[in-house]
Amino acid sequence: MKLLFVHADYINYQVKEKAKSAEEIPRDRKSGGMMDPLIVFACAEKADENSSDATENTLAEIKNVASKIKTENITIFPFAHLSDELATPETAVQILKCVEYKLIDEGYHVLRVPFGWYKVFEFRSKGHPLAVLSRSIPRKTNPAALPSKIGCGPHVE
Amino acid sequence: MKLLFVHADYINYQVKEKAKSAEEIPRDRKSGGMMDPLIVFACAEKADENSSDATENTLAEIKNVASKIKTENITIFPFAHLSDELATPETAVQILKCVEYKLIDEGYHVLRVPFGWYKVFEFRSKGHPLAVLSRSIPRKTNPAALPSKIGCGPHVE
Repeated sequence: MKLLFVHADYINYQVKEKAKSAEEIPRDRKSGGMMDPLIVFACAEKADENSSDATENTLAEIKNVASKIKTENITIFPFAHLSDELATPETAVQILKCVEYKLIDEGYHVLRVPFGWYKVFEFRSKGHPLAVLSRSIPRKTNPAALPSKIGCGPHVE
Repeated sequence: MKLLFVHADYINYQVKEKAKSAEEIPRDRKSGGMMDPLIVFACAEKADENSSDATENTLAEIKNVASKIKTENITIFPFAHLSDELATPETAVQILKCVEYKLIDEGYHVLRVPFGWYKVFEFRSKGHPLAVLSRSIPRKTNPAALPSKIGCGPHVE
């Protein structure tokens, strides 16, 4: 998992055309926004497909950064441009949904931007020393523990 | 060289604190902006330090993308978050300056955002299929051809 964090004053998005493997979304997710978000540009990699802890480690790192910058507003933004070795879209969506629901369960406000759409998006980075950070999330390979078997609550398909 | 391209409606920036190896800048570069830019988030890597063609290949790829999206407005935005193996700040600044001057020589409008500063920045990505692209720029290693010896005109220190 590759993550690029941006602590922003705001973010807005609006979906345009579908790309490959676009997630089906209801009308109310075609556009959205959040004030004072920690934007998490997130890219699931091939090595995350058979990982037992990619989701948990991603969650831990998001919570770590959010606590440092003192925000509970998290925008999960799928962003395939951070790696040359991508996970399948199915795995990527599953991990991002799982992270979303676990964050919500812990009381965070979460905006998950739809996967697989070309999007207009706009944000303003705050410019302090922790406002832009990048992380490569470590993971262990364990074929018996696909993301679908980790258990993310009843929401995850 | 890792590049992340964003075709945007606009970009604005304002420098805040100095980070390590901040480039000295005159007052009129402490903030700036551009309309309809191709933003090139650029990260020079260790392997670019002894490369004979990192600069030329970067320039060629920027021109290639700019021609596809039909803009002559280029914002060069130093962005260390695209790689784990960074070039020295001196090499990075030298390559970015070289790319800047070559683009200007060829008639592009260029905004080069200062290197080594924490910055507030804001942009709106256009959202069409080519609006966000990433590239790893290939290069050949040649210790005899450091960027300083390539020849970027009299402007480059």
